[in-house]
Amino acid sequence: MGQGGTRIEAVMAVVRARIAARSYLPGMRLPSVRAQARAMGFSVSTVVEAYERLAAEGAIRARPGSGFYVCGPLAPLALSEIGPRLERAVDPLWISRQALEAPPAMLKPGCGWLPASWLYEDGMRRALRAVARADAEVLADYATPLGLPALRQFLARRMAGMGIEASPEQIMLAESGTQAIDLVCRFLLEPGDTVLVDDPCYFNFHALLRAHRVQAVGVPFTRNGSDLAAFEAALRAHSPRLYITNSGIHNPTGAVRSPVNAHRLLQLAEAGGLVIVEDDIFADFEFHPAPRLAAFDGLSRVIHIGSFSKTVSASLRCGFIAARADWIDSLADLKIATGFGSSRLASAVLLAALTDSGYRKHMEAVRVRLAGAMERTVARLEAIGVQPWLVPRAGMFVWCRLPGAASATEVARACLEEGVVMAPGSAFSQSPEASGFLRFNAAQSDDRRVFDVLARALRHGR
Amino acid sequence: MGQGGTRIEAVMAVVRARIAARSYLPGMRLPSVRAQARAMGFSVSTVVEAYERLAAEGAIRARPGSGFYVCGPLAPLALSEIGPRLERAVDPLWISRQALEAPPAMLKPGCGWLPASWLYEDGMRRALRAVARADAEVLADYATPLGLPALRQFLARRMAGMGIEASPEQIMLAESGTQAIDLVCRFLLEPGDTVLVDDPCYFNFHALLRAHRVQAVGVPFTRNGSDLAAFEAALRAHSPRLYITNSGIHNPTGAVRSPVNAHRLLQLAEAGGLVIVEDDIFADFEFHPAPRLAAFDGLSRVIHIGSFSKTVSASLRCGFIAARADWIDSLADLKIATGFGSSRLASAVLLAALTDSGYRKHMEAVRVRLAGAMERTVARLEAIGVQPWLVPRAGMFVWCRLPGAASATEVARACLEEGVVMAPGSAFSQSPEASGFLRFNAAQSDDRRVFDVLARALRHGR
Repeated sequence: MGQGGTRIEAVMAVVRARIAARSYLPGMRLPSVRAQARAMGFSVSTVVEAYERLAAEGAIRARPGSGFYVCGPLAPLALSEIGPRLERAVDPLWISRQALEAPPAMLKPGCGWLPASWLYEDGMRRALRAVARADAEVLADYATPLGLPALRQFLARRMAGMGIEASPEQIMLAESGTQAIDLVCRFLLEPGDTVLVDDPCYFNFHALLRAHRVQAVGVPFTRNGSDLAAFEAALRAHSPRLYITNSGIHNPTGAVRSPVNAHRLLQLAEAGGLVIVEDDIFADFEFHPAPRLAAFDGLSRVIHIGSFSKTVSASLRCGFIAARADWIDSLADLKIATGFGSSRLASAVLLAALTDSGYRKHMEAVRVRLAGAMERTVARLEAIGVQPWLVPRAGMFVWCRLPGAASATEVARACLEEGVVMAPGSAFSQSPEASGFLRFNAAQSDDRRVFDVLARALRHGR
Repeated sequence: MGQGGTRIEAVMAVVRARIAARSYLPGMRLPSVRAQARAMGFSVSTVVEAYERLAAEGAIRARPGSGFYVCGPLAPLALSEIGPRLERAVDPLWISRQALEAPPAMLKPGCGWLPASWLYEDGMRRALRAVARADAEVLADYATPLGLPALRQFLARRMAGMGIEASPEQIMLAESGTQAIDLVCRFLLEPGDTVLVDDPCYFNFHALLRAHRVQAVGVPFTRNGSDLAAFEAALRAHSPRLYITNSGIHNPTGAVRSPVNAHRLLQLAEAGGLVIVEDDIFADFEFHPAPRLAAFDGLSRVIHIGSFSKTVSASLRCGFIAARADWIDSLADLKIATGFGSSRLASAVLLAALTDSGYRKHMEAVRVRLAGAMERTVARLEAIGVQPWLVPRAGMFVWCRLPGAASATEVARACLEEGVVMAPGSAFSQSPEASGFLRFNAAQSDDRRVFDVLARALRHGR
């Protein structure tokens, strides 16, 4: 390493030490590059490089035109909560915050869920009325540590239908699929560990892993599953503790892992002592179920996660974890320590909705409706030069390359100013190539205005 | 430090390194004291002392008659989930697990909540029926990042009534009071930090802080609030980042902080740069509200937490955090990253229940009923030689000293064998004196059998 490298590392070490000692507090602006360079007797370019490396690590964050800020456990500060937040940096939380805060009139082709009118509204109304007549304990008491036994039995049977053998004692309910993964991370990870994710992957995996102070390493996801050579190389290079992926339909690409890819991946995981979290929240969108890693593996090193936020209701929070029984017991302790259990009421309402005879028909209708919306979305995108990376077999997402050298981040910012929330590629991936991609949700794109606004943003971006 | 001390530290360092390298995995039994002593060439007594110090740190855990085990992020492993788990070590999670897993027929004087029949059953039924008729968005969509605006407005008005000025933008909904504190810990703490708690304090604070890998230091809680000399000494000795306490009625002692204690405590916190979390879940049990730290401080360094699990329903999970607006925004990012928001449905049901005209009357009746149960509980305890440390003005808890040198842990184990879940002092405190105390919940103690079983356990323990 040359002298320049040593100096850069020295600046990085000083900044890290000040953050650790909290003389630089979360949210605080760092001294300007010039001031820091003067104070430390190094060149401006040395400090610039040090700051940028610290930003890449996630210790600090650049805000364009404003300087560098110390990251808290997560993210920048902002005060407004109404309407689009144009000033917010495009980070792994950008899409969630914009979509969750969007007023009802805004279009949200970038968001990750179905419109409320597509969800199981009638079933939810019936379920709520049924639970309103339940015993006092259902209405007022805490759940048991693992959660409602009848719902866990239902889930065990459902998993058996996918070839996953899990007894109810191997299943724990959680507040959501995300919370389920968070608990697994708390159980298995130490700060500083490395975790493999797909490149691209669901952006919130990046946000979650950052909250755990662990390093995410992306492995390219191909049209048939993980790039196995890259996976093997990442195992050797990083000794990761965990791999987090989707089962069935992959988010954001819509690709599905082939059986041979699943089999070979599990062999690599076994050889490398790797635990796999398989997030299965899109299960009910598949016409023909793909093989589950948990089915191949017998819940030995695979942890299976799911929820019904995408198909029954997102208002009702209820997810689950299926894993080895001894892990489930430790996860139950963690769930109590950090949240004192999940909602008995939510699990009772969910069970009533799922066992209602209408749920199967509801999902059949959703799948067909979604396929139609996908066909129209793909045609409209192609008409303005936006190319699907893959036309998915099922599900709501299509991952698309923008024409020319358009920057998805710039396009998303321009669309946000016109009231349209997009999902730019850089939120899903740390790779430079992802900056030319957008993810579209077909169910939220069934409106001509989405494509008019996008076409305009693309023209201006050139 | 003598040679013995150096050897003990060497054993500790080796064990810690192996846990860090995961050659000792969570849940795994450590080599026996003898085997370890042989392998390392130290005496058995050196290894015993090293293991015990590691156990006190929480890195490993002793299971009597079975050896030492590596702690996961938390706790031991156990498989059964039905009925009392006699083999489980009495740790900060013992009471929660036993009480949550207890079949309905078991008596639970040690548990921390009211019987379901005391909660707001009618109001919950009305609220569920009302929400069953709500708009599709309420039934199916995600909540906004901070949560239902109308509930936050309600909470802001409620807090104003306690002298706490908080705008709705300073309030974020969470899944529960516990999850609210967990998010604050994630936001403010680094592994290795020190946090002050009351001695004794709510046992789950110990479990939660252990999950965050931070050190809890207890400050004695007196009949008027914190022991201020001890608090000041702890500030100097440990430079803690955070202090977690209750507002109003203290758990487990039932004591209430005096205004002068609150004022002086805040001065110390300001001088020491300390942030305070004030957990206010027992607010509606008070006949005459005590002053809130957040009211004195203006939500500058005090974070105010609450929920309605103890008064409306524990089945419905919904808590809240009131804090500085910039902190709330970062907490919202963390909430999304780790759980993707709280339940819109739960907040809608809770708001309907709280704004139902019956809630005030319900709580008036609960307070009066609880006062009667408390009087009977205290009389029955005194009749068998168990002395209240303080007869509380309000609330459900009374903290009691056992006669003679009885061990609360042994008594609790004996009672559990007879189907009664007690709350032994060692779960609330790391101090040796606490091992002679039990906490009683008057609402769960209104049954002669509790005192018959306890009297028998006390006789046998002598």
